[in-house]
Amino acid sequence: MTTDPLVVFTPSGKRGRFPVGTPVLTAARQLGVDLDSVCGGRGICSKCQITPGYGEFSKHGITVADDALSEWNKVEERYDQKRGLKPGRRLGCQAQILRDVVIDVPPESQVHKQVVRKAASARVIEMDPATKLYLVDVDEPDMHEPTGDLERLARSLKREWGIEAIRADVTLLSKLQPVLRKGKFQVTVALHKSHQDDVARVLDIWPGLHESGLYGLAIDLGSTTIAAHLTDLVTGEVKASSGIMNPQIRFGEDLMSRVSYSMMNPGGDKEMTKAVRDAINTLAGEIAKEAEIEPHLIFETVFVCNPVMHHLLLGIDPVELGQAPFALATSDSMTLEARDLDLTAINPRARTYILPCIAGHVGADCAAVALSEEPGKSEDLALIVDVGTNAEILLGDRSRVLACSSPTGPAFEGAQISSGQRAAPGAIEAIRIDPETKEPRFRVIGCDKWSDEDGFAEETAVTGITGICGSGIIEAVAELRMAGLMDESGLIGSAEMTGTPRCIPEGRTHSYLIHDATAEGGPRITVTQGDIRAIQLAKSALYAGARLLMDQRGVDKVDRVVLAGAFGAHISPKHAMVLGMIPDVPLDKVTSAGNAAGTGARIALCNIGARAEIEQTVRQITKVETAIEPKFQDHFVAANAIPHKTDPFPELKKIAPLPQVSFNLGGGDSGGEGRRRRRRG
Amino acid sequence: MTTDPLVVFTPSGKRGRFPVGTPVLTAARQLGVDLDSVCGGRGICSKCQITPGYGEFSKHGITVADDALSEWNKVEERYDQKRGLKPGRRLGCQAQILRDVVIDVPPESQVHKQVVRKAASARVIEMDPATKLYLVDVDEPDMHEPTGDLERLARSLKREWGIEAIRADVTLLSKLQPVLRKGKFQVTVALHKSHQDDVARVLDIWPGLHESGLYGLAIDLGSTTIAAHLTDLVTGEVKASSGIMNPQIRFGEDLMSRVSYSMMNPGGDKEMTKAVRDAINTLAGEIAKEAEIEPHLIFETVFVCNPVMHHLLLGIDPVELGQAPFALATSDSMTLEARDLDLTAINPRARTYILPCIAGHVGADCAAVALSEEPGKSEDLALIVDVGTNAEILLGDRSRVLACSSPTGPAFEGAQISSGQRAAPGAIEAIRIDPETKEPRFRVIGCDKWSDEDGFAEETAVTGITGICGSGIIEAVAELRMAGLMDESGLIGSAEMTGTPRCIPEGRTHSYLIHDATAEGGPRITVTQGDIRAIQLAKSALYAGARLLMDQRGVDKVDRVVLAGAFGAHISPKHAMVLGMIPDVPLDKVTSAGNAAGTGARIALCNIGARAEIEQTVRQITKVETAIEPKFQDHFVAANAIPHKTDPFPELKKIAPLPQVSFNLGGGDSGGEGRRRRRRG
Repeated sequence: MTTDPLVVFTPSGKRGRFPVGTPVLTAARQLGVDLDSVCGGRGICSKCQITPGYGEFSKHGITVADDALSEWNKVEERYDQKRGLKPGRRLGCQAQILRDVVIDVPPESQVHKQVVRKAASARVIEMDPATKLYLVDVDEPDMHEPTGDLERLARSLKREWGIEAIRADVTLLSKLQPVLRKGKFQVTVALHKSHQDDVARVLDIWPGLHESGLYGLAIDLGSTTIAAHLTDLVTGEVKASSGIMNPQIRFGEDLMSRVSYSMMNPGGDKEMTKAVRDAINTLAGEIAKEAEIEPHLIFETVFVCNPVMHHLLLGIDPVELGQAPFALATSDSMTLEARDLDLTAINPRARTYILPCIAGHVGADCAAVALSEEPGKSEDLALIVDVGTNAEILLGDRSRVLACSSPTGPAFEGAQISSGQRAAPGAIEAIRIDPETKEPRFRVIGCDKWSDEDGFAEETAVTGITGICGSGIIEAVAELRMAGLMDESGLIGSAEMTGTPRCIPEGRTHSYLIHDATAEGGPRITVTQGDIRAIQLAKSALYAGARLLMDQRGVDKVDRVVLAGAFGAHISPKHAMVLGMIPDVPLDKVTSAGNAAGTGARIALCNIGARAEIEQTVRQITKVETAIEPKFQDHFVAANAIPHKTDPFPELKKIAPLPQVSFNLGGGDSGGEGRRRRRRG
Repeated sequence: MTTDPLVVFTPSGKRGRFPVGTPVLTAARQLGVDLDSVCGGRGICSKCQITPGYGEFSKHGITVADDALSEWNKVEERYDQKRGLKPGRRLGCQAQILRDVVIDVPPESQVHKQVVRKAASARVIEMDPATKLYLVDVDEPDMHEPTGDLERLARSLKREWGIEAIRADVTLLSKLQPVLRKGKFQVTVALHKSHQDDVARVLDIWPGLHESGLYGLAIDLGSTTIAAHLTDLVTGEVKASSGIMNPQIRFGEDLMSRVSYSMMNPGGDKEMTKAVRDAINTLAGEIAKEAEIEPHLIFETVFVCNPVMHHLLLGIDPVELGQAPFALATSDSMTLEARDLDLTAINPRARTYILPCIAGHVGADCAAVALSEEPGKSEDLALIVDVGTNAEILLGDRSRVLACSSPTGPAFEGAQISSGQRAAPGAIEAIRIDPETKEPRFRVIGCDKWSDEDGFAEETAVTGITGICGSGIIEAVAELRMAGLMDESGLIGSAEMTGTPRCIPEGRTHSYLIHDATAEGGPRITVTQGDIRAIQLAKSALYAGARLLMDQRGVDKVDRVVLAGAFGAHISPKHAMVLGMIPDVPLDKVTSAGNAAGTGARIALCNIGARAEIEQTVRQITKVETAIEPKFQDHFVAANAIPHKTDPFPELKKIAPLPQVSFNLGGGDSGGEGRRRRRRG
């Protein structure tokens, strides 16, 4: 009695015995080995490529003979001539098992490929998108047993791929018959299977094997910018990333001003909805062009956004979000059709997934951060802040996650700052002030040199030095504090008090001069007392939100802080902590997650299980509404001081000088909202 | 120990004991008595009206005292003042059971009202539409437990009505929040629950109790006309019926000419799709106006149509239906959105149901006839023919049902007939020829008198006598046969042979003059030899189709014949049988079902269970394709004789004279297609 050959698959380690002549693909399927195939074993798609190993495999207890697999057959030869097989590779559907063998499945042949994110985090995305391709041979029509072409397609998909039920949009029906006949009843279909529905939707159909790919857009719809990643839904690769300004800015810079626009102007919400949908279509067209793909090959979009953007995207008047109790029209995730959002630039049958909102002020963007950063899986207590015009804040670990949002306003983005500007070439992004000389040196976007290095003037001649961006103003204010030019209350001292002529009077207050380019026709860049007040308001709101979550959690410190958001990536942790933006932790416990919301969108685009996961997660998050918590106001007031009026910041004090100065001349308060300052020694 | 009061409901006879103070509605629900309520017992909707009976009920063994129910309460008084309660009526949700009582539930208070069809058939339609109204109190938003308004609506619907899951179209979301607030969180929703989906769709929402109704359109989309019944989805009442010409006629009179138009003209199918959708919108607008309802209250449409109309409605090129193997793009039933078919005249979130097609030549119209006439439930063997430009034929009983279609052409509708016209005032619809004098008398549409009665001329003066409609030409040809003016082969005799000057020569053949109005400037109405040939072709196709089904079933006679179709309602059974249109049965076994396809559409509109039923039925029907059955041609040729060359028609011979005459002068055949006539004695 002979024994069937033993097959060991790597890297999975799965093994089993199969009769001589069993194709490798068949063996893989029976063992549950992750080996891809679009054509179902016809030797057409080449997705099932494997690498047999030969020789001694003591680990597996196998010696593999040269004739362990069948000889190359005609299908493999033809494929190799036409498109080329890498050396050592075989087609899993053609190579048959003859003797004991070790089979390696290379990463690109795995269905659930793992795509490593570009950002620093170790998190990988497992590919399991909602939309996939299937090659299928459809039974031809038979007059004696009449059925529809769609019904026969469904029957074949069930037989060949185990797809239980399909449905087709009306617009697909018009191409079904000609495509079936052009492909001689062999077709590739793109099927979308939502995690919320047992019925797969036929999104498109091509004669024969479709090889032009399948794409999706992960879209981070922000108040200011709309960013999109065009992603290959088969490999997970990002083919192009692009952004566009949110044209709603012309209706109002921040969220509340857009809500007001809608309240004051009947039909204003409709205008804003149209504007954002038009912009998304423009962006989709541009990004497809950049990646050199046909826009109709975009079959999915995933949106993350704050609640106001969410409602305006969906065509819902956001007026309820502007007043207590901040009721969302709908909070659950949604799976929609492209036409529901007038997305005409992509495939007309494309599907859209919108992540769930957490609360009236905590949107799908925050849900996406939670999906990307996974606070609920953190061993230690993590505080995640997504810094933007609005700050989304998550606090949590394995036991519990809390969330809130806090209206920081646009100061952190350089708006409402006298010399402020968006992050663009010419903007000061980093600054240091010498504690002795009180002289500044700085760096501008577009030039790697500091302003006191040789060649700086030449290299910045073209862009000029035009203003201060968000990260620049944070550093400037923190440096003023460390250099003793500004006191704990935020007051800038006079030239007399500070000993530097850079502190110049401006009305009843003082400004600090960073750079005067008026001689060259440029601007005079200063940090004014008003700028400090704007930053104080913003950072107090952020810190108060974090503290509120810490109160709810019953802690007064956190283990680590994650700065998310495109802007978060550029903030200097040390300077943020000097400002008191974030709670006191060791500096190496402050990390940046890059555009975590955008990453969350990409994860949801590439993995359908992630959609179910975040829907579940969002339900378990404890929502905290800052607008109605009386303690928020107390925390806000206490956080006005730099770094803080009462919280000790012991870790910060180890690394940063915080001179005890006071520039209040005993008179009235010069600007703070409801602050009750006392003079200090 | 006291016993709880006994309650007996009529007409159901359901009975039970309930604690003193139980509302009648509660008792009804616990017993499963069919008592309606939209407001869920709030005393608002008045749907739960009941009539208590007082006195001795020996049948039920109860004597009902005057105080068996609680006194009128304020809710009932207010309702009575505002809208009036019929004498003796109470609101079931308010009246409480105090002592033994008999409660009658009037028909209008039953959810599953039974609506008797207007037509002769005894079949009743039980109301159980897909779209229903629900009044619901929605939880108000709570900042401390943030959820969306939609999610709270879903929660309340589940709690109050047991609705498991809902989903809302994007366009509904934009009105959700204002309506909830206008109704102080009490709203009425229209929910559509398909029999194929567990999730109910929110089609519309109104503040408070919505009382303007809910309507649906049952649409019979024919090649020539589009007919619609505007139906109240609560009561089942038909509020208006209306028709419109199918504008596709300009692309071709019959189905195959439209298929040809599409083949010959690129984009021709798109033109025809647009034309028919536009017409449906026009019809919907007109019928709503006629019924004086708001078109946006139309929430459902149901379509029945033949396969070519089906495909053109759906935007599918019908080219495959014009050639073997006559493959349908899709055959299953469909539940669509109004926008899928560009139905802009009705509620934008309305749902459309299209009945399944049976085969490439046997459409959803035939399925609707099967739903209405239920051959599969017939004790005896029934032949059902839906007579139109195409004839749909069903043969069956409890054991098995077969179906085919047969291309009769438009002759039965008065087309291709020299004096033919559509059924309209002035058209001859009935005719008798005296076998002795060979003189005709006739009736025209718009006048009840026969042409030999006093006052006929005066009453027809306005319309004139303009032509012959479909039923008229059938009677004319049959009468010519019975009067001995035309022989079995269909030849009209000369004046000499027949002894009447009304047989006038026309080329090498003869015509029979029915009426000459040329003196008054009207037409000269004759039956020509060409007319006879057209009718012979049509009736042979019909009979051959029926015979083919009988062959498959293995029988040579049927028990009864049902004539369906608007035209079928006007055909004289006796004349149809003289022509040999239908197999020989006793005359009282030929009945008319009126517009059975339209009735089937109404049934599917009013009862969701009927949709599941017909989908099941259609799968079990044996489809017979006339175009490829060799025997069809033989049956067709044999059926050319009037009534038939070989079939004996014994029942017909009992009631109609069929003189043995022959007008063939021994020369060539004067017109028949492939007929091989022999001279008879």
